[in-house]
Amino acid sequence: MTTSPAIPSSAGSRSTAIKTREIRGVICPLVTPFQRDGSLDEVNLRRHVSFQIAAGVDAIMVTGGCGEFFALDDEERVRAAEAAVAEANGRVPVIVGLLAPGTAEVARLALRMRPIGADAIMVLPPYYVTPSRAGVEDHFRRIAGAAETSIVLYNNPRRTGVNLDTPMLDHLAGLPGVVAVKDCDRDLCSIAEKIDHLAGRIAFLSGDDDLGCHSLRLGAVGGVWALVNLLPKLFVKMSRAVRNNRVAEAESIHRKLLPLIRAVLIENHPGPLKELLLEAGRPVGTGRPPLQPMTPLQRRNASGALARLMGRSAPSGRKRR
Amino acid sequence: MTTSPAIPSSAGSRSTAIKTREIRGVICPLVTPFQRDGSLDEVNLRRHVSFQIAAGVDAIMVTGGCGEFFALDDEERVRAAEAAVAEANGRVPVIVGLLAPGTAEVARLALRMRPIGADAIMVLPPYYVTPSRAGVEDHFRRIAGAAETSIVLYNNPRRTGVNLDTPMLDHLAGLPGVVAVKDCDRDLCSIAEKIDHLAGRIAFLSGDDDLGCHSLRLGAVGGVWALVNLLPKLFVKMSRAVRNNRVAEAESIHRKLLPLIRAVLIENHPGPLKELLLEAGRPVGTGRPPLQPMTPLQRRNASGALARLMGRSAPSGRKRR
Amino acid sequence: MTTSPAIPSSAGSRSTAIKTREIRGVICPLVTPFQRDGSLDEVNLRRHVSFQIAAGVDAIMVTGGCGEFFALDDEERVRAAEAAVAEANGRVPVIVGLLAPGTAEVARLALRMRPIGADAIMVLPPYYVTPSRAGVEDHFRRIAGAAETSIVLYNNPRRTGVNLDTPMLDHLAGLPGVVAVKDCDRDLCSIAEKIDHLAGRIAFLSGDDDLGCHSLRLGAVGGVWALVNLLPKLFVKMSRAVRNNRVAEAESIHRKLLPLIRAVLIENHPGPLKELLLEAGRPVGTGRPPLQPMTPLQRRNASGALARLMGRSAPSGRKRR
Amino acid sequence: MTTSPAIPSSAGSRSTAIKTREIRGVICPLVTPFQRDGSLDEVNLRRHVSFQIAAGVDAIMVTGGCGEFFALDDEERVRAAEAAVAEANGRVPVIVGLLAPGTAEVARLALRMRPIGADAIMVLPPYYVTPSRAGVEDHFRRIAGAAETSIVLYNNPRRTGVNLDTPMLDHLAGLPGVVAVKDCDRDLCSIAEKIDHLAGRIAFLSGDDDLGCHSLRLGAVGGVWALVNLLPKLFVKMSRAVRNNRVAEAESIHRKLLPLIRAVLIENHPGPLKELLLEAGRPVGTGRPPLQPMTPLQRRNASGALARLMGRSAPSGRKRR
Repeated sequence: MTTSPAIPSSAGSRSTAIKTREIRGVICPLVTPFQRDGSLDEVNLRRHVSFQIAAGVDAIMVTGGCGEFFALDDEERVRAAEAAVAEANGRVPVIVGLLAPGTAEVARLALRMRPIGADAIMVLPPYYVTPSRAGVEDHFRRIAGAAETSIVLYNNPRRTGVNLDTPMLDHLAGLPGVVAVKDCDRDLCSIAEKIDHLAGRIAFLSGDDDLGCHSLRLGAVGGVWALVNLLPKLFVKMSRAVRNNRVAEAESIHRKLLPLIRAVLIENHPGPLKELLLEAGRPVGTGRPPLQPMTPLQRRNASGALARLMGRSAPSGRKRR
Repeated sequence: MTTSPAIPSSAGSRSTAIKTREIRGVICPLVTPFQRDGSLDEVNLRRHVSFQIAAGVDAIMVTGGCGEFFALDDEERVRAAEAAVAEANGRVPVIVGLLAPGTAEVARLALRMRPIGADAIMVLPPYYVTPSRAGVEDHFRRIAGAAETSIVLYNNPRRTGVNLDTPMLDHLAGLPGVVAVKDCDRDLCSIAEKIDHLAGRIAFLSGDDDLGCHSLRLGAVGGVWALVNLLPKLFVKMSRAVRNNRVAEAESIHRKLLPLIRAVLIENHPGPLKELLLEAGRPVGTGRPPLQPMTPLQRRNASGALARLMGRSAPSGRKRR
Repeated sequence: MTTSPAIPSSAGSRSTAIKTREIRGVICPLVTPFQRDGSLDEVNLRRHVSFQIAAGVDAIMVTGGCGEFFALDDEERVRAAEAAVAEANGRVPVIVGLLAPGTAEVARLALRMRPIGADAIMVLPPYYVTPSRAGVEDHFRRIAGAAETSIVLYNNPRRTGVNLDTPMLDHLAGLPGVVAVKDCDRDLCSIAEKIDHLAGRIAFLSGDDDLGCHSLRLGAVGGVWALVNLLPKLFVKMSRAVRNNRVAEAESIHRKLLPLIRAVLIENHPGPLKELLLEAGRPVGTGRPPLQPMTPLQRRNASGALARLMGRSAPSGRKRR
Repeated sequence: MTTSPAIPSSAGSRSTAIKTREIRGVICPLVTPFQRDGSLDEVNLRRHVSFQIAAGVDAIMVTGGCGEFFALDDEERVRAAEAAVAEANGRVPVIVGLLAPGTAEVARLALRMRPIGADAIMVLPPYYVTPSRAGVEDHFRRIAGAAETSIVLYNNPRRTGVNLDTPMLDHLAGLPGVVAVKDCDRDLCSIAEKIDHLAGRIAFLSGDDDLGCHSLRLGAVGGVWALVNLLPKLFVKMSRAVRNNRVAEAESIHRKLLPLIRAVLIENHPGPLKELLLEAGRPVGTGRPPLQPMTPLQRRNASGALARLMGRSAPSGRKRR
């Protein structure tokens, strides 16, 4: 057994009775607003939280990938989480993204986040270090021990090189504290199988904007989608349409969203998304380094896609092409 | 232009006259020894440094992947670097690995490392965040600005999902401070092309144990290889054999090493390597979480490969198989 | 413009009024039965055709991958197609698989198949040779010209290394003669997008057994699945359940099939499938070289999966696991 | 044991004493010339053979990938092989490429080629059908049985999706008749390991133009390179330079070739190569379908690269860049 003084834990004090409000539905992975001088902009962050809640989202996430986790220092991560929790004020669950590669670093951050009272933290499997499967489990178990909050697993194999497959998720779903998985798996059979296997145990949340509508149709209970930042009502409407079995309406919304998704979720994410938010009258500052501004071509594509979407956003019923 | 108060820089004070001793030859990426209670073991770290220098390595690296960068906290990273620099005491160059994904975090760490006086820091391209090529350059430029030391680029596409290809390296080689690249590229044409293009500008260092001998034959000026921790003299001998055009001798050493490389550099690296170091009478503690102990089968394979290597380590000239 | 005497064509005589019965629903890719001495067994092939039609399949395919196209010579391919068409006798459409890599060879075969009067031929994009996108279109256009029958496109990127993506299919759907695509794409967004884009123009047919149920739920109009050979009624039932919006029933059938699919569709396909057909009392001979018999472990897995499926095939409503 | 009347064999008559002249050095994979009307041009094929032999190549290959195997019918394949063997007239060994995916088809072709008296046939592992490892061996064993000539294995994983790794080659090298492997593996360690393991048993031939020089430096005994068609003397010179330990000269030739290799070996290969041969005054006709002519941009790139290479082909000794 490996020992590690570097990983804090609550040494047995952990209550087994963590009660989380259910994490499901449309979840907004908040961008982190910055001021002109580049510093954290808590005023606009709180505004953005209330804007999202007013638009009907079911939960919010702070300091995830959209929130530029890697560009924030620990102080800023804590302040952003505090601001989000305070502004949400219990209206919707708040999830805090802790995306660092190492077990020890995530555990330390989880410990610092405890007093804030977020509903859950979202954690990647250990990446870069390539442990065995037992090591992946060990990672989540130790972090859960330090966190004293619910855990949302995050599977993003294209970015981390590590895949949480069905047997692995099946196993991790049994760890204390694990309540959901945000999954960027793209394989149709694998997605459907995970939804089936995890049903009734933990929530399967779609993690890619372009898979959202289809994943809900296949039984996913919710999703974390970047463009919710920009168009929360449209995602809420799509989600409700699937839930109420109005598949044609849901598909029609997805069809409108897809060109925008492809124009925005390119390199330098969430930089382009922040530029569009400004265009839409919701200033959140620019992305921090190493993110770069959109090229003129990228901007033309993205603005064009947004304009076309807006022009057609009335429920026209007209057939594409 | 993006601004970022989160990234420290030396604001113009940076001397353009950084003088690094050449980084080339056999470089040991030191494992980080831990004590029984899991805490940093600076005594054994210093012993390991002097053992390596006595064995003839040309440079040492501390807190790289072999050094469990992700399992250390900032305090420990600084202390490990200080111990290595103090012990090396100018006898060989010391490189400090700063492997975090984000620009800001690496820049902050680089700033903290400045007073220690290491010869270089080793930095990955920004990973997880997938910036544009301009963003990759921005990343290294900002970190070089904060570091006031030489930069070793680190290309490890299988672990990071980001590839520094020949045109990118060609470009980065022109940034101030960049003196070398540790490269885990495995494509024969690409490796040879990089060696050719970078010759006379920055040092091409092989980054995979199993590519070491071949890369040297193709013109690489050195390498950073995990098993140097265990068998420094053998790597020094191989390297010298290539330099002196004794290809058959070099190949013979490589042939002996290959089974051990394959048995040790598996999941949970550098855990298995640390277990073998103990077996070889050089205790460095175990790997920290999420690394796991070897399974009995893995241990049998690794110990067997080491024993076979040792039994044949005399220059017998006998033909394999 | 390239010229080629090697590619036959009907030189303008091609009627633009090819009328195909619709190709959709459950399609059986017939295994090709062989006799004890290894020669083509037309008697059992015809029996298998009528067995499938009696079980309710909507179409049959002969000399596809399941039919060991590559192990047959031209004479046998023609005889197998003749037998299938004669036995089907208009009860269901018959598709002939022509899976050769080269344009000229497929066109020659298509010409030979003309007199037989099958409803369609199924054709892969040119593989091994890696032409440009214009070359892919040229390939299908020339073959359609030679065939004078409908064309089913076949996208199987894992086997051919060539991918027919949405824009390519969008384009090919406009070629004269193209009526359907059998697609082994596994990406959820791509599958849903293809179904959406091709709707009303050509039929999207699922090409992987493990994607069948989900693809139908997403709007695919049918599928070509290997295990239909063994369990046609179960696939017909699943397909009907989706069509009649009984999703839970369809999913339950899929859940029963999945372990068998995984045990059978391994290396040496369709060898293992033929062994199971024998076990089920429907002898079709063994696979031709280079296919190998199942290992004892594989056979135990496959037989076990089939037995478990049969034991549970009554609509018990019991929950899996 | 599977039986197959479809696969001819020489039923025990096979002499175990096949004697092949050694296959090594610079091998030209001949393009197949076509006449204006698209038919096989044996006159120019024979001219091309003698041109290559006069230029100093060590062996020639006919009806390989460069020879558009998939665009030829069996009659043409036989005629091309006959023409090449007759023209070579024993001056250099002749290899016949038989690239079909299926065991039976290759065996049938091998049988037809017997009377021609080529020195060897080149055969891919069975592709598309994905047999087990035992099936791969079975494939080569059966074809060797039918061929009564030497076998050159051909590993081209990017085109076939099947990889012949070191253990597999180690095993296949022991089959009767196997004398060489043409390998497109790109992994440095794997290439070096194969060269080492196969030394003294079968010849390791480099199969990618851009890997040629480096592979020779690592110990490959020869290579099959597309651009030998265009510049045989340059490849002969490079090969001789490596053999005589004039590495700088060899590298300098490689450096000149690389831009041309990249401009020509793109989609539609060998179409662009045939266009350049025409430009160089050696008309061989165009590529057959599905190959397409170069786009204007591709042509500009390719012609430019050739012109720059010619302008510098004198042994100037000037340093690149």
